[in-house]
Amino acid sequence: MIKVAIAGGTGYTAGELLRILINHPEVEITSVLSTTSAGQPVTNFHRDLLGETDLVFTDHLGTPDVIFLCLGHGLSREFVDTHDIPAGCRIIDLGNDFRLDSDYKGMHFVYGLTDLYTEEIKGCRYVANPGCFATCIQLGLLPLAALKAIEDEVHVTAITGATGGGRKLAETAHFPYRDNNISVYKPFTHQHLGEIHKTVAALAGSDPQINFVPMRGDFTRGIFASIYTRCGMPAEEAVQIYKEFYKDSPFVFVSDAPISLKEVVNTNKCLLHIESHNGYIHITSIIDNLVKGASGQAVENMNMMFGFERTLALKFKPSAF
Amino acid sequence: MIKVAIAGGTGYTAGELLRILINHPEVEITSVLSTTSAGQPVTNFHRDLLGETDLVFTDHLGTPDVIFLCLGHGLSREFVDTHDIPAGCRIIDLGNDFRLDSDYKGMHFVYGLTDLYTEEIKGCRYVANPGCFATCIQLGLLPLAALKAIEDEVHVTAITGATGGGRKLAETAHFPYRDNNISVYKPFTHQHLGEIHKTVAALAGSDPQINFVPMRGDFTRGIFASIYTRCGMPAEEAVQIYKEFYKDSPFVFVSDAPISLKEVVNTNKCLLHIESHNGYIHITSIIDNLVKGASGQAVENMNMMFGFERTLALKFKPSAF
Amino acid sequence: MIKVAIAGGTGYTAGELLRILINHPEVEITSVLSTTSAGQPVTNFHRDLLGETDLVFTDHLGTPDVIFLCLGHGLSREFVDTHDIPAGCRIIDLGNDFRLDSDYKGMHFVYGLTDLYTEEIKGCRYVANPGCFATCIQLGLLPLAALKAIEDEVHVTAITGATGGGRKLAETAHFPYRDNNISVYKPFTHQHLGEIHKTVAALAGSDPQINFVPMRGDFTRGIFASIYTRCGMPAEEAVQIYKEFYKDSPFVFVSDAPISLKEVVNTNKCLLHIESHNGYIHITSIIDNLVKGASGQAVENMNMMFGFERTLALKFKPSAF
Amino acid sequence: MIKVAIAGGTGYTAGELLRILINHPEVEITSVLSTTSAGQPVTNFHRDLLGETDLVFTDHLGTPDVIFLCLGHGLSREFVDTHDIPAGCRIIDLGNDFRLDSDYKGMHFVYGLTDLYTEEIKGCRYVANPGCFATCIQLGLLPLAALKAIEDEVHVTAITGATGGGRKLAETAHFPYRDNNISVYKPFTHQHLGEIHKTVAALAGSDPQINFVPMRGDFTRGIFASIYTRCGMPAEEAVQIYKEFYKDSPFVFVSDAPISLKEVVNTNKCLLHIESHNGYIHITSIIDNLVKGASGQAVENMNMMFGFERTLALKFKPSAF
Repeated sequence: MIKVAIAGGTGYTAGELLRILINHPEVEITSVLSTTSAGQPVTNFHRDLLGETDLVFTDHLGTPDVIFLCLGHGLSREFVDTHDIPAGCRIIDLGNDFRLDSDYKGMHFVYGLTDLYTEEIKGCRYVANPGCFATCIQLGLLPLAALKAIEDEVHVTAITGATGGGRKLAETAHFPYRDNNISVYKPFTHQHLGEIHKTVAALAGSDPQINFVPMRGDFTRGIFASIYTRCGMPAEEAVQIYKEFYKDSPFVFVSDAPISLKEVVNTNKCLLHIESHNGYIHITSIIDNLVKGASGQAVENMNMMFGFERTLALKFKPSAF
Repeated sequence: MIKVAIAGGTGYTAGELLRILINHPEVEITSVLSTTSAGQPVTNFHRDLLGETDLVFTDHLGTPDVIFLCLGHGLSREFVDTHDIPAGCRIIDLGNDFRLDSDYKGMHFVYGLTDLYTEEIKGCRYVANPGCFATCIQLGLLPLAALKAIEDEVHVTAITGATGGGRKLAETAHFPYRDNNISVYKPFTHQHLGEIHKTVAALAGSDPQINFVPMRGDFTRGIFASIYTRCGMPAEEAVQIYKEFYKDSPFVFVSDAPISLKEVVNTNKCLLHIESHNGYIHITSIIDNLVKGASGQAVENMNMMFGFERTLALKFKPSAF
Repeated sequence: MIKVAIAGGTGYTAGELLRILINHPEVEITSVLSTTSAGQPVTNFHRDLLGETDLVFTDHLGTPDVIFLCLGHGLSREFVDTHDIPAGCRIIDLGNDFRLDSDYKGMHFVYGLTDLYTEEIKGCRYVANPGCFATCIQLGLLPLAALKAIEDEVHVTAITGATGGGRKLAETAHFPYRDNNISVYKPFTHQHLGEIHKTVAALAGSDPQINFVPMRGDFTRGIFASIYTRCGMPAEEAVQIYKEFYKDSPFVFVSDAPISLKEVVNTNKCLLHIESHNGYIHITSIIDNLVKGASGQAVENMNMMFGFERTLALKFKPSAF
Repeated sequence: MIKVAIAGGTGYTAGELLRILINHPEVEITSVLSTTSAGQPVTNFHRDLLGETDLVFTDHLGTPDVIFLCLGHGLSREFVDTHDIPAGCRIIDLGNDFRLDSDYKGMHFVYGLTDLYTEEIKGCRYVANPGCFATCIQLGLLPLAALKAIEDEVHVTAITGATGGGRKLAETAHFPYRDNNISVYKPFTHQHLGEIHKTVAALAGSDPQINFVPMRGDFTRGIFASIYTRCGMPAEEAVQIYKEFYKDSPFVFVSDAPISLKEVVNTNKCLLHIESHNGYIHITSIIDNLVKGASGQAVENMNMMFGFERTLALKFKPSAF
């Protein structure tokens, strides 16, 4: 049993961690930190956990074996600066503070893309958990990049659910606006492009332009990415290459039939589907933004870091509908 | 042509008034008031009107023939207190300030339930426009009340769309919460009960208990009310009575087949369906909360007050889907 | 390890059973029956299971220890008539064939309401799994019935998700109709009333009238029931009685705060919230129609019948959003 | 007053025509044809029209001045072959039979893209109304094509609402599947590409490759298209060019702020927004698929063909929410 602390306990990714970790056989959650809600039951905020946990928010870190940082982007460094992290304590950061700048005060953060940096993660102490869009898009591109087969620009359109924006109220998450609506935001400039470029460049040895149009979808969970790039490879060959690339990944699968987003909702899976048209290879990639795109992958990282079975406590009943 | 002012111009009911009145052949909108957004185009807030109007929010009332008050509940009295209302100017209040306390500083507000107080409205200067739940439920009960046929308690469950809560951000209108969700609020205590009781008592000469369970639905527009009360009348007879009662109402219809909410969305209509079971008469009643339940009925009132054809500018293309 | 067969394998409740049982440590799924799709992978129909199972539909029953019948209502008897059920094989019927007529050809079906007939289920061979509406409403009424405190009529409005109608295409489940819509169906006459009456009468020694208005909601999973009946008991006292009644139920909890449907979606839980108003006790009750209202409760029954821990494989990560 | 017939009267586009034309001051609807439902009130199928029309489906064409063909694709030719079209009767086909092959039995069908072929439409007798995706995407590309500024491939991702699939029940329109879901269909091969290519080629004098990924959205109405192509033109310049191009189009507007789909739902408008990034010009284009993408544009065509004011009966109250 390891002792786990969660910082930023009232947010959505913290809630997902709780949903996962209360059923993890090797974990004892010793502190769920909240600066604003210390003393309140966690079920006041994560109401679906009623009857499943008596945990109470605290402002006392304690001596955990690992801390999950579920803070607003930019606040992870501040947390590290202002808290007395126990010696030997591991850190998994779900924010974006250490994804690009991976070294800070003697700590080196491994980029926690579980299906690529598998070996590095196993031995490491600090993990920068990937962004949700970044996870979905990278998993769609890794086999091509590894093969140096990205010869031209990459075109990506990806649609995210509203939980991607977190618990904070916002006009674009106001139900009368969001319901039955679609919109584009940050076209060509989304902040996850940095992570994607870094990974693809490291793997492919080149740095293709990636044209990324993110969209806000009128659903709660999941990211659907449509990706294409010029590539002469026939679809059947690509399918084999992708299946081979992910053969040891317990949560990434290639579907022979076209996929739809809800096939992965509330799971830690990524499903991929590949076709070729007009000299393009077209890949659709789907994940649950809060699970494989955040807290699920974070626990997968934790399992790997502590030598547990990688899938431990991560085989969820899918929602399906 | 009459000159119209709208106070509280950035809110949802003001937006609906604009959508209706810019196509009204007898109306010139002379001022859309906003204390916070004066100087901005109205299309900054009501973005669907782009290309249809060049109106700009103002803080100057001018000399309208009628003012629509689309203010937060409680603020209509304050508006009247602090503004120089031109002599002869009519007022239609969409808030709840004058629905129960209908006299204020020499002004008498007629309760603007168009399908009941038709004659009173025609000659009046001040109208208190009914609440959305109140409109939907009252239209379901009026013929029975008029017949003194409400012999026992009335049981009402009514579900409202999220626009009922207005533009203000709220946790219960946050998309990740509201989507695919249902909840009850203010059971047995909703503030619209006052209006309903007042009308039913005036009409029936008695004041039956009304048990009203309001629910928040995961849709944007509309109210669906399920109403039943003990009544020995066969359904066929009730249907005839309802059809007779509403024969001069241009927007209220009795459906022989069961109804579903979207049959009235984006219209000024109310549809009713009546069955009898177990000694109960069961009535379903549906309206669009922002149209017949607010701005549509308000314009219907305006049409009646100014002697225009009652349906003028109110025959909308339904959304249907 | 027990051997499990599932009949009617392409339907929604069969899919949910598969989602649950593939991770059940004491179960081996030996046959997933389908008359129309034998030979096809189950993932052709339950696409979210891609990567998690290689099961193939079959038309061969084999020699299971238990059969789950997920057939259209009325077809369970036919299945029993036309199949060679192995001696000693248990049956859990998710249809309605044996809920009211519990004896058939020497088999006696116990009504599988896990939180009431706990002891009977443990020793039995045949279970008639309750209906979804019936489960939700009964769990809201049982403590009052046990106390003989249902003194008057019961008023119930309950809204169900579209999965309640199953995989079969229907106009009322066509997305352009159902999205953002609400409608009533079978008011006062829904077929689940029989089960509810039978249970309440057995427990209360009386048979109160239950006025039940079912509604179609514009969401996929879950049932939200609003229930009230005359009862002088203060809410605080009722809360204590409900908590005591369900103290050994691992999935039924009383919430002090009001509840919303998604707090139970994709879980086997039932949440209850109780208030008192106007001399009425008002209970809201929520379940996931496919889990506690069908396949989850069915597995709970299986666990009890075979002496496994009752919660085994039933502690799901909630969807929450 | 002109006499109008509608063939294929039970379908979605026929319903939209009815919603529009019953309020058109120059139109008398003389026959709503249905081979399967002759004799039934149209409100049996288009239930939102209850109280607004007493029209009854018929199998008798009569002698209309114009026929709208709302038939399944491929059936318009059959209709023309098997019916006695009155001499002088105009035809507006909402199917795809005459969009590419514009001549048939002496009739020449003008492609009814109102904002491009304005003059041709005014004098013509036969119109092939554009497809919904085709309208949305073409309106996003026309000014660039007219300027010969499409120098490279065009990348399009467009998401459609479920009404695009019509009234026919389908697995991909089954609510449990479609709700909160996203999927791609016919990537790079959608049948509307033909129309788009033909228009762009005619206008630009060249035929760029158009990479079009269509998606199924979890909403009912509307198409959201994201379009980009290499183009050195600064966004500000493009905005001016677009505004100039559409200055006489009463329903096409360029928005300076980013747009979201519901800004056009239930209107005949198209909104465009333009940005430039990475050497690309990025255009978002939105329409209501049933209005500007079908029946609204069809009536706009009728108005132009008969010399009515182009916007007559087409200024709808937007749904907005």
